[in-house]
Amino acid sequence: MKDKNLALLCDYYELTMSNGYFLSGYGDKTTYFDMFFRSIPDGGGFAVAAGLEQLAEYIEDLHFTEENIAFLRSKKLFSEEFLAYLKSFRFTGDIYAIPEGTPVFPNEPLVTVRAPAIEAQLIETYVLLELNHQSLIATKASRMVRAAMGRPILEFGSRRAHGADAAILGARAAYIGGCSGTACTIADQNYGVPASGTMAHSWVQMFDSEYDAFKTYCALYPGNATLLVDTYNTLKSGVPNAIRAFREVLVPRGVTGFNIRIDSGDIAYLSKKARAMLDEAGFKDCKIVATGSLDEYLIRDLLLQGAAVDIFGVGERLITSKSDPVFDGVYKLAAVEERGAVVPKIKISDNTAKITNPHFKKVYRLFDKSGKAFADQLCVYDEVIDGTGPITLFDPDAPWKKKVITDFTARELLVPVFKGGVKVYESPAIGDIRDYCARQTGLLWDEVKRFDNPHTYYVDLSTKLWTVKQQLLEAHK
Amino acid sequence: MKDKNLALLCDYYELTMSNGYFLSGYGDKTTYFDMFFRSIPDGGGFAVAAGLEQLAEYIEDLHFTEENIAFLRSKKLFSEEFLAYLKSFRFTGDIYAIPEGTPVFPNEPLVTVRAPAIEAQLIETYVLLELNHQSLIATKASRMVRAAMGRPILEFGSRRAHGADAAILGARAAYIGGCSGTACTIADQNYGVPASGTMAHSWVQMFDSEYDAFKTYCALYPGNATLLVDTYNTLKSGVPNAIRAFREVLVPRGVTGFNIRIDSGDIAYLSKKARAMLDEAGFKDCKIVATGSLDEYLIRDLLLQGAAVDIFGVGERLITSKSDPVFDGVYKLAAVEERGAVVPKIKISDNTAKITNPHFKKVYRLFDKSGKAFADQLCVYDEVIDGTGPITLFDPDAPWKKKVITDFTARELLVPVFKGGVKVYESPAIGDIRDYCARQTGLLWDEVKRFDNPHTYYVDLSTKLWTVKQQLLEAHK
Repeated sequence: MKDKNLALLCDYYELTMSNGYFLSGYGDKTTYFDMFFRSIPDGGGFAVAAGLEQLAEYIEDLHFTEENIAFLRSKKLFSEEFLAYLKSFRFTGDIYAIPEGTPVFPNEPLVTVRAPAIEAQLIETYVLLELNHQSLIATKASRMVRAAMGRPILEFGSRRAHGADAAILGARAAYIGGCSGTACTIADQNYGVPASGTMAHSWVQMFDSEYDAFKTYCALYPGNATLLVDTYNTLKSGVPNAIRAFREVLVPRGVTGFNIRIDSGDIAYLSKKARAMLDEAGFKDCKIVATGSLDEYLIRDLLLQGAAVDIFGVGERLITSKSDPVFDGVYKLAAVEERGAVVPKIKISDNTAKITNPHFKKVYRLFDKSGKAFADQLCVYDEVIDGTGPITLFDPDAPWKKKVITDFTARELLVPVFKGGVKVYESPAIGDIRDYCARQTGLLWDEVKRFDNPHTYYVDLSTKLWTVKQQLLEAHK
Repeated sequence: MKDKNLALLCDYYELTMSNGYFLSGYGDKTTYFDMFFRSIPDGGGFAVAAGLEQLAEYIEDLHFTEENIAFLRSKKLFSEEFLAYLKSFRFTGDIYAIPEGTPVFPNEPLVTVRAPAIEAQLIETYVLLELNHQSLIATKASRMVRAAMGRPILEFGSRRAHGADAAILGARAAYIGGCSGTACTIADQNYGVPASGTMAHSWVQMFDSEYDAFKTYCALYPGNATLLVDTYNTLKSGVPNAIRAFREVLVPRGVTGFNIRIDSGDIAYLSKKARAMLDEAGFKDCKIVATGSLDEYLIRDLLLQGAAVDIFGVGERLITSKSDPVFDGVYKLAAVEERGAVVPKIKISDNTAKITNPHFKKVYRLFDKSGKAFADQLCVYDEVIDGTGPITLFDPDAPWKKKVITDFTARELLVPVFKGGVKVYESPAIGDIRDYCARQTGLLWDEVKRFDNPHTYYVDLSTKLWTVKQQLLEAHK
């Protein structure tokens, strides 16, 4: 049997390094690690943070089973003292994170971990994979939802997801990003993402005729009939048979909320023709659902062409974020404690974009008097921005470009999730996360939200943090 | 608590249709469904089938819990009779599948399910997601392994995977496709994929100096030292410090199997320079591991440039199949039984590529006298190709292009996995699947294996099957 405990869902080097820290006296050293990302998928203007609830659950439960220990022992690489330590391992550190649904930007910590070196190291893979995955899908969903201009988007991609978790938690993340529901039933049971569905071609094929299939379905689900009209011929057979079934089965019962679904062919053309046929038949309220390899670009294009689509079902291009399937979050050491003092650490790189922001940090989001977010500022942990005094913004790559701002409000983004190993964060209900995401996205300027060449939102360093970074760069020269 | 039982990892329409089949008397109707794919990722010449072991385990265990039933009842859409049926649900049908590791081609069934309509319908999502995911990653791994021309490839992508299953089963699939190991520890514990690892930048940063970090690591893991040399400056600091640590810690112990890893910068340039420095120091056996956003194109390019890389570590571009993250498997009704006879069914489409191959089918792979595979032939279930008589091949889209073959051997690809609900297939050990994959890939012509414009391998229909298909197309006109 497979061990379902996921403690060993970590990179092997985390274990060899941890054993090394343990044996060389660094195991208890307090460290600060940041999880942050470097680029926004699809060249977008912002990403949507997601995955925190599952990360918190993982860390709260994190422990090593007898089977895990026996497996590691079999590798003949780990000391018995370290294995004994793992046996009673629990996470004892602090974690700060940006709540799910928040629009986020490159180079700001989405998660900061303050913990003994071993603990911080052993959670690296899970922190990354959970946040990278769900943020990727929430970000993609947000793009599609914006493209649909108010029309609902349903997530239909389970069958093309990268495994079970990708299907289920992908549906969750898509909902946070603004989708209206999913086809993935278990995502409803476990996470409260509303599940719905229509019918497959096999339903239509199973019956002696398309009309029989439609009639039977309408009789079974009078309040939930979405008839798939493209099994044989959308306009010559599917739509007329659907109209007949609506008329003969649903109209006599006084039902009005029914739909048709088009899954293939030229959606723009077929939807307009189908719309005219439905209107002509008196079914102006019948909605048209379009599915079939859609993404934000195709949705935008369909609407520009005047496609008569009321609801979009999206599959593979959302659940895999097909056009850009990698969220590039990394997990980097930012500081250590030495004799109680926080000592900032930096990772240098020939590639300046890969140089890290050192130190234990805070992130403030700054809003102008109209309430719009205009910049995030990374500060040293002991700085406070309360909006009472002016603030100096400058481009960290061009520090002579300065701007003094007086009339603004500030909100701290990182909130405590663990304190001394105890979970202190209660994840909001999924619907509340989704609403929060929509509200926070609404606080961004349209220029940040456009798909093509969006404005680069400012993520600046405070003067104090910038100075620390320059000193470390100098010291490493 | 989340329900870990995955019975509801199905599209909601599978449940509404099943309830509909149940209530309208179609529930027990014996159906045949094929899982097949339409296009090979990355424009390649073949794909590698994977995921069958997990699919078989899923189906063997498939059942609905009290929680599942209660959840469905809360939807007020399903009949009590159907819910009672689900309560005692077990899969009772037959399943045939192409074994994992087999090179496969578009439009041939990787899985054929013969089962009562409801059972066949309820497993649709899982059949697709498991085979689509693992076949995607195995196929991508096979491409990267071929690009590396015999050098080992290690899978390092967990942190960028789409969730936990994507990391773990992705590592399994990558191994089947030819990778030599993974960084994902639990993939070793649960599936026997050899896990290994090096060190992170954080290890180097944790110590007072890079040299201290290297020295400590070599002393701890003399037989497994792979030193990461790019934390500060690869050629000025990393490689010299590694050489010093090897010389001072490992040479006195007589150890020789050690490596360095380069994770950033210009790998071609740095690896050649590092190679020269290592050779100069007398460490000709020290291997160079290269990592950092690699894929088959970059690997091929690096080797063309003469990069001195001995081992490649690949991450996000393998575990997400970044350049083409969708394996487009579908699940389509191929036949039903009526009064004991198999009645073929077809799905028509305006797009001729989307018209299905009807009927309960066999797949034969045909080998020429040199042992190379030259075509697959789809046949009706009761046909036999045993290589004793000549066979007529023709292009199903251009049936006048005929070819009679006499000197060949044939092998049936679909093997029984379930018979009457009982699992009759024992999955081979993972190493055997990997070896089988390498051997079977070796039976393909080089022209099918090249990356750019590969030869399109023939997947033909037998005359009998082609005739059935034409008759169904005529009947639907």
